[in-house]
Amino acid sequence: MESHLETDLDVLKQRLLTMANHAEKAVTEALQALDQRDDDLALQVKQSDRVINRFEIEIDDLVIQQLIKAPLATDLRTVTASVKISHNLERIGDEAKKIAKHAIELSGQPPIDIKLDIPCMASLTLEMLKLSLDAFSHRDPAAARALIPRDKEVDVLNKQVHQMLSQHMAKHPNAIQRCLDWMAVSKSLERIADHATNIAEDVVYLCEARHIRHTGVKRGMPSLATA
Amino acid sequence: MESHLETDLDVLKQRLLTMANHAEKAVTEALQALDQRDDDLALQVKQSDRVINRFEIEIDDLVIQQLIKAPLATDLRTVTASVKISHNLERIGDEAKKIAKHAIELSGQPPIDIKLDIPCMASLTLEMLKLSLDAFSHRDPAAARALIPRDKEVDVLNKQVHQMLSQHMAKHPNAIQRCLDWMAVSKSLERIADHATNIAEDVVYLCEARHIRHTGVKRGMPSLATA
Repeated sequence: MESHLETDLDVLKQRLLTMANHAEKAVTEALQALDQRDDDLALQVKQSDRVINRFEIEIDDLVIQQLIKAPLATDLRTVTASVKISHNLERIGDEAKKIAKHAIELSGQPPIDIKLDIPCMASLTLEMLKLSLDAFSHRDPAAARALIPRDKEVDVLNKQVHQMLSQHMAKHPNAIQRCLDWMAVSKSLERIADHATNIAEDVVYLCEARHIRHTGVKRGMPSLATA
Repeated sequence: MESHLETDLDVLKQRLLTMANHAEKAVTEALQALDQRDDDLALQVKQSDRVINRFEIEIDDLVIQQLIKAPLATDLRTVTASVKISHNLERIGDEAKKIAKHAIELSGQPPIDIKLDIPCMASLTLEMLKLSLDAFSHRDPAAARALIPRDKEVDVLNKQVHQMLSQHMAKHPNAIQRCLDWMAVSKSLERIADHATNIAEDVVYLCEARHIRHTGVKRGMPSLATA
């Protein structure tokens, strides 16, 4: 028989997963709008950000209700990790909204004459997001750990895209605004990958009670004793 | 006589305030390094980000310890708001680190020949940060509410700076990289102001148990019933 507590924690998990679906859909559709120069879809993504924001508030409230009842350390980790995961999802929604905004800017202009690795970045980032949410859904810390190194690949691609665009600008001053829009899209993808990494770190924390965020900290961690 | 709980919550508050001092110092020094082309100071700021990151972990742990003991809704709000405030401070530290990075890039290049409103943005942003931390320190929701509208002023300045720089690039292709560095600094300031606004919203939540984040939500809030 399930206890009340398990049922409540399950409600929290289900709402987070629903929020995650909305965030993932927003990113996918923002990228589709960008690719297909589809302003209507981009506007829909911008609108849907409000629903994702509303989820963050709902999850905070569920967390508080939960905290009033939950006495075990493992449940407390669930609720604090939920606050963090929901915040990361909310930020992913913000980035999707930004991509949608730049998609609208770019669809009104001629395409720029330069081959960028944005499709590769986009599929890497979407895959990281999907893997992080699966790891959360299945409480799978090994899967969460496995995806974390991929964040560096996205960082490298973002730097390459940034460099190509800044060189292109220098030669084509009339393309500067479009290059800035593409830079912002690339930066948003890089941030979505960061948030997916944060979610993976939260999943490890949730399952193993171990902080793996701020990896630099692990090597010669500065003491806070006198801070 | 103080209860154990009050003492524990006070420890949490004091650690958050110490973290806040580190974050505020990092922003101030990053801006000073930028202004005075001081690479040593910029490198110090980049190093000090690790201390701020370490605080986020310490505060999470204090929060969990607290949750095991705290039974009252008002204390639960303190701990969940602490998780959020600490996360915002950690992000402010990240932005200070980025400003420091761009300060180093810029100090190695000749100054660009354009007058930007960065000093005005910097002082507005630092003041918002200071006011948000004071509002937290004194549990003053009125002061917190009062600073929120100022975020729009910083947004407007960021847009102006962005536009001036993109126009400057078009005329001076050899200044493109420096203009991109200055754009990134302006964006970081805009984000620090966002995080200060988030902290102010968390202070209102802490004191009044009322969510004021995502203000768009208040007008015609989308229902999540079927989401």
